Amino acid sequence: MTIEFGLRGTFACETRISSIIDDELAYAGYSIEELVDNNASFEETIFLLWHLRLPNEDELLAFTEMLNQNMAISDVIEASLKIQCRQNLHPMSVLRSTVSLLGVFDRQAEVSTPEATYEQAINIQSKMPTIIAAFSRLRRGLDPISPRSDLSFAGNFIYMLEGNEPTDVQIEALNKGLVLHADHELNASTFATRVCASTLSDLYSCITTGIGTLKGSLHGGANERVFEMLEGIAENGDTEAYLQKRLDSKEKIMGFGHRVYKTVDPRQKYLKEMAYELTKGTDDEKWYTLSLEVEAFIREKKGLIPNVDFYSATVYHSLDIESDLFTLIFAMSRVSGWIAHVFEQQNENNLMRPRSKYMGPTSLTYVPMADRQVIYKEVN
Amino acid sequence: MTIEFGLRGTFACETRISSIIDDELAYAGYSIEELVDNNASFEETIFLLWHLRLPNEDELLAFTEMLNQNMAISDVIEASLKIQCRQNLHPMSVLRSTVSLLGVFDRQAEVSTPEATYEQAINIQSKMPTIIAAFSRLRRGLDPISPRSDLSFAGNFIYMLEGNEPTDVQIEALNKGLVLHADHELNASTFATRVCASTLSDLYSCITTGIGTLKGSLHGGANERVFEMLEGIAENGDTEAYLQKRLDSKEKIMGFGHRVYKTVDPRQKYLKEMAYELTKGTDDEKWYTLSLEVEAFIREKKGLIPNVDFYSATVYHSLDIESDLFTLIFAMSRVSGWIAHVFEQQNENNLMRPRSKYMGPTSLTYVPMADRQVIYKEVN
Repeated sequence: MTIEFGLRGTFACETRISSIIDDELAYAGYSIEELVDNNASFEETIFLLWHLRLPNEDELLAFTEMLNQNMAISDVIEASLKIQCRQNLHPMSVLRSTVSLLGVFDRQAEVSTPEATYEQAINIQSKMPTIIAAFSRLRRGLDPISPRSDLSFAGNFIYMLEGNEPTDVQIEALNKGLVLHADHELNASTFATRVCASTLSDLYSCITTGIGTLKGSLHGGANERVFEMLEGIAENGDTEAYLQKRLDSKEKIMGFGHRVYKTVDPRQKYLKEMAYELTKGTDDEKWYTLSLEVEAFIREKKGLIPNVDFYSATVYHSLDIESDLFTLIFAMSRVSGWIAHVFEQQNENNLMRPRSKYMGPTSLTYVPMADRQVIYKEVN
Repeated sequence: MTIEFGLRGTFACETRISSIIDDELAYAGYSIEELVDNNASFEETIFLLWHLRLPNEDELLAFTEMLNQNMAISDVIEASLKIQCRQNLHPMSVLRSTVSLLGVFDRQAEVSTPEATYEQAINIQSKMPTIIAAFSRLRRGLDPISPRSDLSFAGNFIYMLEGNEPTDVQIEALNKGLVLHADHELNASTFATRVCASTLSDLYSCITTGIGTLKGSLHGGANERVFEMLEGIAENGDTEAYLQKRLDSKEKIMGFGHRVYKTVDPRQKYLKEMAYELTKGTDDEKWYTLSLEVEAFIREKKGLIPNVDFYSATVYHSLDIESDLFTLIFAMSRVSGWIAHVFEQQNENNLMRPRSKYMGPTSLTYVPMADRQVIYKEVN
C-alpha cells in the first residue's frame, strides 16, 4: 500500500452534502451559481445543507425565526469575551474558546439524540455572528449590541458590528459571501470535524475542532493574509516589483491556487463582482484595482488562478470588517457545513482511524540512564 | 477508487513516533514492555516521544525541572475553572475549554517557530494535571492545591487531587498508566490533531482538537463507561445474566476489542497486574475480581480481548479518581503523543485534504419559493 501524502485524492467518506465535479461546486445538488443567481439567502442555504433539500416558505420562516431567537449570548459568555480581550492574540483563538464554553454552559450538551444535536446546532450557528461582533466591539472598548429580530442573519451581523442600519448592498454582499463559503466538501476543517464526530463526541467538540483547524494559514487563515499582502503592495507602490520579489524568494502569493480546482474557483467570480460593486466610486476602489493588477500578474507569471480568498478580502474590508476577523466570517459561514457533516457522520458512523507507516528503528533496547551520556547525541 | 470506510487500513502519513507491528506497541523503537519493565518514568517517555530518543541524565533532569516549573496555573485560569463548575457537564468539555483558554492567555501562542512551539508544548503538558486536579477539587467545593517541585508528574497529580502524600505504589501505578497511554499511532484523536496541524494552525488549536476528539465514547470516552458497567454488574449481582442481556440486546460491552489489535492489547496486561497490586486486600478488590469474571465471560462468548480501557478503570478507581475524570487522565497522558505528532507534522507538512465521494442528486434547478409547497416533503 502506497501513501498518498496529505490523503491527496483519497476518498475518506461518502457524502450527499456538497460536491466538486469538473470545477463546479454544488450544495446537495444545487450549483452555487444556481443558488447565488437566484439570491438564495444564507438561512435557506443552511437549511439546504442540514436537510439536503430546500425549505418551503413556512419551513424557512420557522427556521429563520429559530435562528433569530437564539442569537443573543448570555452574560457569562459576554463576560468571558471581555476577559479574552488581549493584545497579541488571534481572534480565532477567542472564537475557539468561546464556542467551547457555549458547550460548557449548554445543559443539553451531553445529550446526543438527533433532536438535541439539532438544538445544539441552532445554538452554535445563531450565536456565531453575535460572538464575533461582540468581541470586535469589546476590544475597541465599546459595548456589544444586541441582535434584532427583524434583520436577516447577514444584516444582523453588520448591524451588531457598528450599530448602523445595514444597507441592501451590504446585506446582499455579506449574504453572498456567507452562501459561497458555507460548504466545500472535505476541506481540512470539515474533515477534522468529521474525524471528531466519528468518535461520537459532542457537537461542541466537533465545531471547536473545525474552528481550530480553519485557523491555519494554509486554510481559512489565508484570507486575512491576502489583505495584508494588498496593504504591503499599496505601501510599496510598485505591484510588479513587490510580487516579483515575493516570487523570487519563493514566498507564497496568498489567495491563489487550490488543491482541488484546476481551471477556475467558481466562488471567485461572485466575490470579484461584489468587490467591484461595493467599492466603485468609494475610497476602497483602490483595493479592487490593485487586486486586478495582482490577478493579471500572477496569472501571467505563474498561471495560477485566484481562489475564494482573493477577492473576499476586498469585499470584507469594504464592509468595515477588520482584517483579523476575516477568518471568523469564514467560520460563521462554514460552521453550517461542519454541522451538516456532523449530522451525516452521525447518521452512518464509521470511526475514522487510519494507520501510519512507521519509518523509524525497531526493537531498541532500553539503556540504563548512567550509560547514556556517550551513546546519545542530538539527532535533529 | 474504492472507499475504505473509516479510512480502515489506509496509511495517512509516515511516522517515527510510534508503531504497532504484530500487536506490539513501540515508542520510537522501544517496545512498551521494554519501557515499563525498566520503570521508565512518564517524563522520560514524553522526552522520548518529542525527541525520538531517550534523554541522558542531565537532559532528563532539565526536562523534568522545566515541566515542574510550568505546572502552576494562573489566577485567570483558576477563575475560569470556577465558573465552569456546573452540573450535567462533562469534565472533558471543561478541559477542552481550559486548554483553549491557555492559548488565549499565552502571549506567544501565535509565534510558530520550533522554539516557541516547544515552549507551548511544555506549557500545555505541564498544566494538564493541575487543571484536572483543580477542577476536581473546585467542583467538590475545595480549594485547589498548588503543585510541589519535589514530586514527579504522576506524584504531583495524586498529591494535587487530595493533598495527601502519594505512596510509592500509587505513583508507580499512575506513572505506568501514563506511560502506557502516551501514544498510539494514528488513533482518531491523534489523527484529528495532525489534520489540524496540517493547516499550520497553532498548537493550542491542535490540542483542543485532540481533547474534543478523545472525548467520544468510541475513543477515550470508553474507559469511564467500563466502570459504569462494572457498577451496573455489581448492583445487579449476577455477572453472567447482566452481560448476556447486554449481548442479547446488541449493546456494546465496554473495554473489549480493538480495530488494530487482533490477538492481544499489549497495554492491557500491565493494567491488569496493576489493578491486582493496587486492590489486593482492600475494599476495591471486588472490582478486580469482577473484572476477571467479565473478561472470562466475554472471551468465551464473543472471543473478544480486553483493551487498554478495561483494567484501567479499576486502576484509576483505586487511585480515588472519580470515574468521569478517567478520560481526562487519558488526555493528560495522550497529550504527549499529540504534541509529538504536531512536531512531526510541522517538520514535513502536507495539508491533509482528502476527497469525499458524492452520492446525491446533481444539476438540480432552484425552484421559486412559492412553488415549493407541494413539491417537497420531508425525506428523512
